[in-house]
Amino acid sequence: MPGYVPGAQPQGKTVKLNTNENPYPPSPEVIRALRAALDGGGECARRYPDPLCRELRQAIAEFDGVSPDQIVVGNGSDEILRLLMTVTLDPGSEVGTLWPTYSYFEFLAAQCDARPVRHGVDTGGRWPDSLFEGGERLLLICNPNPPVGTLQPHEMISRLCEARPESLVVIDEAYIGFAPRGASAVSLLGSHANLMVVRTLSKSHQLAGLRAGYAIGTGEALAALLKIKDSYNVNALTQAAATAAIGDTGHFESTRAKVIAERECLAAEMRRRGFEVPESHGNFLFAIHVRAQEIFEALAERRVFVRWWDKPGMRDGFRITVGLPEQSDALLRALDEVTAQLGR
Amino acid sequence: MPGYVPGAQPQGKTVKLNTNENPYPPSPEVIRALRAALDGGGECARRYPDPLCRELRQAIAEFDGVSPDQIVVGNGSDEILRLLMTVTLDPGSEVGTLWPTYSYFEFLAAQCDARPVRHGVDTGGRWPDSLFEGGERLLLICNPNPPVGTLQPHEMISRLCEARPESLVVIDEAYIGFAPRGASAVSLLGSHANLMVVRTLSKSHQLAGLRAGYAIGTGEALAALLKIKDSYNVNALTQAAATAAIGDTGHFESTRAKVIAERECLAAEMRRRGFEVPESHGNFLFAIHVRAQEIFEALAERRVFVRWWDKPGMRDGFRITVGLPEQSDALLRALDEVTAQLGR
Repeated sequence: MPGYVPGAQPQGKTVKLNTNENPYPPSPEVIRALRAALDGGGECARRYPDPLCRELRQAIAEFDGVSPDQIVVGNGSDEILRLLMTVTLDPGSEVGTLWPTYSYFEFLAAQCDARPVRHGVDTGGRWPDSLFEGGERLLLICNPNPPVGTLQPHEMISRLCEARPESLVVIDEAYIGFAPRGASAVSLLGSHANLMVVRTLSKSHQLAGLRAGYAIGTGEALAALLKIKDSYNVNALTQAAATAAIGDTGHFESTRAKVIAERECLAAEMRRRGFEVPESHGNFLFAIHVRAQEIFEALAERRVFVRWWDKPGMRDGFRITVGLPEQSDALLRALDEVTAQLGR
Repeated sequence: MPGYVPGAQPQGKTVKLNTNENPYPPSPEVIRALRAALDGGGECARRYPDPLCRELRQAIAEFDGVSPDQIVVGNGSDEILRLLMTVTLDPGSEVGTLWPTYSYFEFLAAQCDARPVRHGVDTGGRWPDSLFEGGERLLLICNPNPPVGTLQPHEMISRLCEARPESLVVIDEAYIGFAPRGASAVSLLGSHANLMVVRTLSKSHQLAGLRAGYAIGTGEALAALLKIKDSYNVNALTQAAATAAIGDTGHFESTRAKVIAERECLAAEMRRRGFEVPESHGNFLFAIHVRAQEIFEALAERRVFVRWWDKPGMRDGFRITVGLPEQSDALLRALDEVTAQLGR
């Protein structure tokens, strides 16, 4: 089993558009909350953290319009996903995913000796019939789905939950903060006992470095998550930072708006340059080009980092994280140089 | 499967001697490092953390006299233990532990559908013959071992590694910072390929709230840990704090000396009051008394919290975390009241 390979974390002066970090700093309230926590003479470090993340769950509950009882917090959503695998799968079990999608799903499945089943989507993102007809105990579905950023509507999610009553349908909404308002499946939780939503604060709330993710659900799977998680899985500073981040809706809204605007701007510029760029609802774009790999490599030589995967269905494009306007400009300049060079 | 029940985290004015936290604040260097990390405008939060914890592993390597390549860092040693189970056990596998010991081991085993095998120790802590003769693939051995705090010497550990060449022998040294110098099994790693040492910064370095633990090893199991851990399992602030904590050996030594001195003082006072208190090498004492449970409950009513377990081999005493001298005084005062009341 090969280990998971995260995007490179290059040092020094680079244009880093390869790991879907939010280009804007976290809310000033986050820094304030962390400084306040440190004013206590180190008590926040010395004592065990709240194993139940009570304050943070209260803040999430208000943000998402659910009850704190419906929430379990993890050390990043990666931990939530790992725990979900543990509670639902046995060795040899199947776990269904879209393909292409977040490749970490398959890494996790391998760790649980589970067998990933890929349900292929095209660049339009439409869910195939096989997804509705399969028998996997667990479905891990990104919505919006990387690397393209396609989004499926509520009707689709409801249809899937109804078609698969024996499956736990997990909608990973890592990128929902960049999708149109109302797109979240949280509002469907009351209608489908086999539905669970997973979120991260890494992208929409600029907390990738602090590791905070959560599950929202209603049924047995949520209770099982709470029961098997490490008791002190979320450290005290992350709890403080995440509570502050989620409480500052103004900062979330303003950075969200800027990322969305830049995404649309960059998509137009890429299309003008001959790339096929399907509509994205994430903080990234998938740029399709017959020479995608070569361009990716030539950009990296210029210290402009985007992401390309040597995997089926992903080779013909590269993913660009939406960054600051000046990062887009630098990318486009490098791209113009590269294509000029390659083209002749 | 019952969930793990951590010690209570009471709010308000209490004497909290129930979860083995260090009573002294973390090193000022920890607070300084965290403040410095926050000075970067939130970059430490915005960007993904170093998946390999390079700086922290360098600091640990210097502290423990090993190579950084021998170290894997986790979100607390609880995560390390969980990963160790995942890489060594199959459903139905056996995992050997001492008994009594850290009860979390059995909780973890249940999660992996593994069967814990208890090797009973008396309050002297001597390892039984069964431990050397068993066939479990994984042995999780605390040294010092709670709740008593008994310590086994290097010869015993070497003998165990040699007697069990097919087993991975994990020595959990959560409390080694309070044991005599030179007691750590790290110096034996070169002699036994099936030996691994697990540490936490929760107790000896006052970082319970920040979740930092690590494994030191040499063999395949270490490589497997690295391969299956979540890529970003240790958040950026914890990496910064742990690096600073482990680098301040002066603070470690001075707080260690104070805890050890207080432990011996408190043990003497408890013995004077008719408790049997075996020698402890941790930051806690196990106080044996025919009315242990009643005393535990009466103390809790007075908001003096120690820890009592309704488990075989543990019911006849309660564990007291070594706190500040004034906390010991408050405990002893409450104890005198309680025993006066119970006694008549």
